[in-house]
Amino acid sequence: VTQEHFHFLILAGGGGTRLWPASRKQRPKQFLPLLPGGPGGPGAGDAGEARRTLLGATVGRLLEVAPAERLWVVTAAAQLDEVRRCAPEVPRANLILEPEARNTAPCVGLAAVEVARRDPEAVLAVIPSDQYVGRSAPYHQALLRALGAAASAARPVVTIGIRPTHPETGFGYLEVGKEALPGVRAVERFVEKPDRATAEGYLAAGRYLWNSGMFFFSAARIREALAEHLPTLDALLVEIERDPQRAPALYPKAPKISIDYGVMERLPKGAVVCVPGDFDWSDVGSFAALGELAAGDERGNVAVGEALTVDAERNILYSQGARIVTAVGVSDLIIVATDDAVLVLPRARAQDVREIVAALERERRGSYL
Amino acid sequence: VTQEHFHFLILAGGGGTRLWPASRKQRPKQFLPLLPGGPGGPGAGDAGEARRTLLGATVGRLLEVAPAERLWVVTAAAQLDEVRRCAPEVPRANLILEPEARNTAPCVGLAAVEVARRDPEAVLAVIPSDQYVGRSAPYHQALLRALGAAASAARPVVTIGIRPTHPETGFGYLEVGKEALPGVRAVERFVEKPDRATAEGYLAAGRYLWNSGMFFFSAARIREALAEHLPTLDALLVEIERDPQRAPALYPKAPKISIDYGVMERLPKGAVVCVPGDFDWSDVGSFAALGELAAGDERGNVAVGEALTVDAERNILYSQGARIVTAVGVSDLIIVATDDAVLVLPRARAQDVREIVAALERERRGSYL
Repeated sequence: VTQEHFHFLILAGGGGTRLWPASRKQRPKQFLPLLPGGPGGPGAGDAGEARRTLLGATVGRLLEVAPAERLWVVTAAAQLDEVRRCAPEVPRANLILEPEARNTAPCVGLAAVEVARRDPEAVLAVIPSDQYVGRSAPYHQALLRALGAAASAARPVVTIGIRPTHPETGFGYLEVGKEALPGVRAVERFVEKPDRATAEGYLAAGRYLWNSGMFFFSAARIREALAEHLPTLDALLVEIERDPQRAPALYPKAPKISIDYGVMERLPKGAVVCVPGDFDWSDVGSFAALGELAAGDERGNVAVGEALTVDAERNILYSQGARIVTAVGVSDLIIVATDDAVLVLPRARAQDVREIVAALERERRGSYL
Repeated sequence: VTQEHFHFLILAGGGGTRLWPASRKQRPKQFLPLLPGGPGGPGAGDAGEARRTLLGATVGRLLEVAPAERLWVVTAAAQLDEVRRCAPEVPRANLILEPEARNTAPCVGLAAVEVARRDPEAVLAVIPSDQYVGRSAPYHQALLRALGAAASAARPVVTIGIRPTHPETGFGYLEVGKEALPGVRAVERFVEKPDRATAEGYLAAGRYLWNSGMFFFSAARIREALAEHLPTLDALLVEIERDPQRAPALYPKAPKISIDYGVMERLPKGAVVCVPGDFDWSDVGSFAALGELAAGDERGNVAVGEALTVDAERNILYSQGARIVTAVGVSDLIIVATDDAVLVLPRARAQDVREIVAALERERRGSYL
């Protein structure tokens, strides 16, 4: 198997409100201009605004290792316009629509069917659309190494594990073992988000990596794994393979389960391996993460969109549209402004946006979600 | 002179950015829906939205003591639409347009000419349009007592002084002396905004009242005072009186000076008297004042417009339009959101909005002002 069979499957179907009010059920974070624009910013380049979105930046990075014909995006029909805006380079024929949101296992299965229809020897890189990556070179290296391993004779399922830089409690971890192939380690187990003390232990131990949520396998291999671990899903995929027009009717019957729980964590020990990645990476799980992605001013204020601060320190200011966010005499706050909502909270409580989301749901003000 | 000669002149021409970003050069605070709506709020009543503005609330209070024909509004041509929206009851013929902003002395002089044209025996109450008044009954009592004094044989110039409830440093004061008429005290002197220690001394002394900026005099008396203290203005007014059509050409030649500095503080001792007022009053000089005008929730958060707080205390949240302002885990902040700008600052630094305004001017982002 050569690189011409490497396909990149970008998962862009998820919704979410962790970055509310910027992210909405109908406009999740992969479609938002979260990255700084202009020269030097991760979003710099000809593609402009689109590259300031996490999806657009992901596409930009992948186009450096593969032609657009081997980039695929799985998304929901309702988000097709957003995808085409953020990822205009991806051919229309490579946009795979989920008939209904059924979590990632059915989504990856459906995509494996579609990609294999074009290229039966396809080896897939499954890439979330809503992650931040700092430097491209080590990222590209890790991707190609992972794809190479997935294409090797042993046909392992491969992940990328990020070397942790701090005791993060917001990510899952991979415990890795001995070297399986050059630059590739065995995965001993998947570990849930740890508490602070446990995370510190993981950091000290050195054999725990952040689970990036990127997976690599041949189309044939993932179908085998689905057949073994999610046979009801596999049965639906067999029918869809035979008659693609039945997908809208069949897909909604698929079990709602993630690829992580449904497949990865059920694979026998030795079947999953990991390429350690040494690059800045974030799943951008809250607005606090923006403070790490973008350079701040001399007082540590990070602004995305138009902002102005006076006598203020270490704030994160996010403004959507032609709107200025200003602050005087405050520190360590997150201030987010969109057309119809404003949120203010301390950086240290960035996760508590869910409290507002829950309150809006409780008070039936769901139009803001 | 009977009450049928009492006319109420509302000054609505001023601009200002002390409540930026809600107040703009073109939309100063008297036109903003600052007051809470709904039953029980100061803005409650049939007139609805208009009454939630300081101008609308002022008109509403005055209509309880005088018919609309004796209410007058002086404003700028550019703000005529706002005036008609907030004060629809005031007849078009009673809207006096300043040909150009020349501060309050020319403005009051022009209005005195216009009102006297209709009623040569007019006694004027000059009422700022951008003040908050809590209870109406003692306010009405003070107004009528002040007008009665102004109409009395001695023809004094009358002010209302508010009994201070705290050592406010944001207002000017009046030092009052012995009783001149029943319920009316002599004004010994006008005092500039004091520092904190001085303000505490004033509060303890008991003979210092807040200068409300309301003035009362007969049309004839103010013309005499203008003739004596601002003769160049008086000369222009004499010409405008003769030929009103020349006002647009003549008025811009008037000296730019306030009625306070130009006339009140120059009148001889004994010519100015004061009616003490015992009512909640504020000149709404900053967003911090909103915290005093409106009732807060059980944790002291005061909201004007749609807002939602979680685990937050003593914040002031102001939202314009169909927009929700939310906050988690913050206290003692002012959060203001409009169509094109957001401001966050501590309540204790409410005056520092001027820092942002200055920075916007400096950086030539005046479109936000």
